[in-house]
Amino acid sequence: MLSIKPIHTNYLNADHSMNLLLLSPSDFYHQNRARIDDRRLLHLQNILKTAPESILKVGLIDGQIGSGTVLKIDATMAELEVSFERDPPPALPVTLVLALPRPKALRRIIRNVAVLGVKRIHLINVWKVEKSYWQSPLLSPDNIREQLTLGLEQAVDTVMPQVSLHPLFKPFVEDELNDISKNTLTYVAHPGADNPAPSTNPQADNKPPVTLAVGPEGGFTPYEIEKFEEVGFLPISLGPRILNVEVAVSALLCRY
Amino acid sequence: MLSIKPIHTNYLNADHSMNLLLLSPSDFYHQNRARIDDRRLLHLQNILKTAPESILKVGLIDGQIGSGTVLKIDATMAELEVSFERDPPPALPVTLVLALPRPKALRRIIRNVAVLGVKRIHLINVWKVEKSYWQSPLLSPDNIREQLTLGLEQAVDTVMPQVSLHPLFKPFVEDELNDISKNTLTYVAHPGADNPAPSTNPQADNKPPVTLAVGPEGGFTPYEIEKFEEVGFLPISLGPRILNVEVAVSALLCRY
Repeated sequence: MLSIKPIHTNYLNADHSMNLLLLSPSDFYHQNRARIDDRRLLHLQNILKTAPESILKVGLIDGQIGSGTVLKIDATMAELEVSFERDPPPALPVTLVLALPRPKALRRIIRNVAVLGVKRIHLINVWKVEKSYWQSPLLSPDNIREQLTLGLEQAVDTVMPQVSLHPLFKPFVEDELNDISKNTLTYVAHPGADNPAPSTNPQADNKPPVTLAVGPEGGFTPYEIEKFEEVGFLPISLGPRILNVEVAVSALLCRY
Repeated sequence: MLSIKPIHTNYLNADHSMNLLLLSPSDFYHQNRARIDDRRLLHLQNILKTAPESILKVGLIDGQIGSGTVLKIDATMAELEVSFERDPPPALPVTLVLALPRPKALRRIIRNVAVLGVKRIHLINVWKVEKSYWQSPLLSPDNIREQLTLGLEQAVDTVMPQVSLHPLFKPFVEDELNDISKNTLTYVAHPGADNPAPSTNPQADNKPPVTLAVGPEGGFTPYEIEKFEEVGFLPISLGPRILNVEVAVSALLCRY
């Protein structure tokens, strides 16, 4: 019987392409030989219709990217011989400070942020975040890791982002934010701000690191914006429209 | 009994904020007096918990934005007295040519594109679009209009975008695309292209109009890229990662 960990994502259905088969050290049973028997196997069987001798793009979590030849694939597992050749793409040098979204949006946003190459995410509490969001099972480390993994598989990247939870706003913004954002350009998204969101050439090297704060649906309160400004964050706007958080995050990140 | 048209969106649940109550001429029973009894009423009752004398932001489809005072609200309908004062925000001067996404992604993408201010969308067929997508009920004019409406309500905009369907690629790119993109800068998104996606100040006036082509998951084929290049489209990239279509569209549009 196929052993599948029950998880919340209908991963064979959603808009996710497994452009990379991401392996962890525990998948290896021998040097350069890996075995998989979980949702990745289902994906190979059902979506990619992988057969023996297929060659797949593979990556090692926090390691390199290369190729894997399928030695064997059946109903219960697949075995691959792999070799790694190149580094993953450079990280997007943006630290994201994000008001905790509602659970269903959180899943997609975490995944999209991983797709875009962000490696450091701080989920914070603000006035307009409902207390119930902090109890969501989708906030468990396993569930967050799953969405990050799906994002890396889509983007063809291996470097696992880190996500921290900060359920108390004032201690976060007074005691932690300064260290988190040290030596970075700092911006807080705020509809109606005078300053436009800056942008760079997406293919440039040596982009200056940025810390970007994005609020909840409905925005940060004036008090919260002041607290960000006290730590040097510049309010920026993306134009006259009120964007939902999911679109706003993609939009802001893609300018770097 | 409340008469609700059955529609596919679980609109009371998804990441949609009704920041604007959008009215059509048929909602008016008297000059400046409108009555609603559909999902917008449900939203007022359940999410906004609107009471008589509440003042709401309202807009007239393809018209102005203003405010409405709730005269009466009960289980079956709400009546408002409205006055319109200001123009909607300027359109984003981008015509989007988009390979038809899978149905579930289509809904969100249509909505997001409306949120971002795009007014002209051409859904086209390419090699990697599955034929079944063209049969989806989510492609009906009513369903498309619904997603556009939700986008306008989120963004606080009134100007209804237009969506055209083009199930045949070659006639579209050979006979229609030149006229569609006349007098615009023309770009086709292509992972791996040398040219970076251009960007502008989001708050600038007089931004040059752009026609932007975005492919399916898996990208345009080399043949399709050539056809776009024949009509003067420049291949552009957003960097080394493979973005899913939803993120790519938000990312590309937000650079204008």
